[in-house]
Order: sequence, then structure tokens, then C-alpha cells
Amino acid sequence: MYIDCIQYTMNPTITIDPKSPVPVYRQIADAMRHLLVSGRLQPGDALPTVRDLAVDLGVNFNTVAQSYRILAEEGWLELKRRRGAVVVDREQPSRPTREREQQSVQRLRELIAQFQAEGIPVDRIASQLRKLADSLVKGG
Amino acid sequence: MYIDCIQYTMNPTITIDPKSPVPVYRQIADAMRHLLVSGRLQPGDALPTVRDLAVDLGVNFNTVAQSYRILAEEGWLELKRRRGAVVVDREQPSRPTREREQQSVQRLRELIAQFQAEGIPVDRIASQLRKLADSLVKGG
Repeated sequence: MYIDCIQYTMNPTITIDPKSPVPVYRQIADAMRHLLVSGRLQPGDALPTVRDLAVDLGVNFNTVAQSYRILAEEGWLELKRRRGAVVVDREQPSRPTREREQQSVQRLRELIAQFQAEGIPVDRIASQLRKLADSLVKGG
Repeated sequence: MYIDCIQYTMNPTITIDPKSPVPVYRQIADAMRHLLVSGRLQPGDALPTVRDLAVDLGVNFNTVAQSYRILAEEGWLELKRRRGAVVVDREQPSRPTREREQQSVQRLRELIAQFQAEGIPVDRIASQLRKLADSLVKGG
């Protein structure tokens, strides 16, 4: 079970960009949150131990431990004694304030500006945004 | 001129969220990059000195200095002796690789997952994504 989880659930979808300005522990947490939100990791699923995932990703033990702590604080994981973790049934958060939503839109705008600055053409960015919007509404 | 720039160009648009997990120097750089990409800061525009902006935003001097360095490395700013900066005419970067574009889409997906995890309804997120796509193509 365990090995399956590392091999088939985690490996293909978590990738780390060592050149990114986003710290690695955040990259791991962000990627795992995406798997959790999309339902590819379900309540009851066992995650690899911190040590195994660290070896797998070629990063420091503490880096993975920090990612797991973040997700545990957000209510996604229950951490286990021997440094493993299990996905738990997370309470649906209450709808955030309008101000918080505005901040989210601002974060999106800034990320898009970053893509433009990197030279990705605006029509490509726009079509990706529309695709993502479609897949959200279809529940994809 | 100088004071105008702080007062009317920078102040209304840079906001810092102290509770965000994104480091403050990155928040400042991201917000300024957005102003640069959208053309609200133009080549030749003088930016406030590091010290003035730090006081303005209520953050450490070194934090703002780091943001300016990031943007200078990206080719947006020319740093000045007394710690001011001027917006320069930045060369259009060459179009990034397909792999880089895929990474960008992944970053977007992860940010969206974060919004979902915070409880923003998917239809709201989708409509914001479509609005952003529209404004990009209209050159807004």
C-alpha cells in the first residue's frame, strides 16, 4: 500500500523547481494541496513518511516535515508518530471575506504579470486561464 | 516629482499582507512587477528611494532593497547610488520553453487550489479567471 502511494500517487505529480524563488517546502505543500483539493488524495489515504518523500524528491528531511506541518495546520493531514501522515476529512472552511477574495485576485494578477515578464504571450496566458476556469466549473 | 511618485504612483497600489506566507520582499517585487508589466510604471519613471518606500510601507529597509534588487536583476530597474531606482526600457524576453509554460500553468493550478482550500467558491474563482483572461486580451 505504502509503496504504491509513493510510487503512483505522489511521484508523478509533485515536481520541484530548484530555480524557483518559491521556497521548496512551499512548492511541496502547494503541489500536495492541489492533489488534496482535486480529490486525487482522499481522506484515509496514507502519505509517505517524511523521510521517504525527502529521499524521493532529493530534498532535506526538514523541508518535507515543514510542508507536512503546513498542511496539518490547514486541516488536511493528521501527522503520525513515525513521521507519516494520513489525509483527514477536512471541514469546509467558511466563505472568506470580500477583502480576502480581492487579495486573491491581486495574487492572480501578480502571477500573470510574472508570466508576461517571462515572455509568455498574453493570448497563451488568456487561453490557459479560460481552460482552468472551464475545468473548475466542470468540477475537473 | 519625487514626492508625487511616492504619493500617487506607489502608494495606492502596493499593499502588503503580513499574514501571507509569501515573504514581504517578494510581495513588494510582485506588486511592482505588476505595475511595470501593466505600464503604470513607465521607462524613465523614478521610484522612491529604498528608505522612503520602507518607511511608507512600514517594513525594513533591507526588505525593500531586496525587492529592488530582484527587479533590477530582471532588467526592470536601474539602481541609483543613493538607493533610488529608475525604470528602464526592458528588452522583451525571448519566448520561454514549453516546459516553462507548463510550470506556469502548474503554478496557476496550485494557486487556485489554495483559493478553493480557503473556501472561495469555484464559480467565483472561475469568473475571476475569465475576467482576467478578457482584460489580458483587451490589453487591459
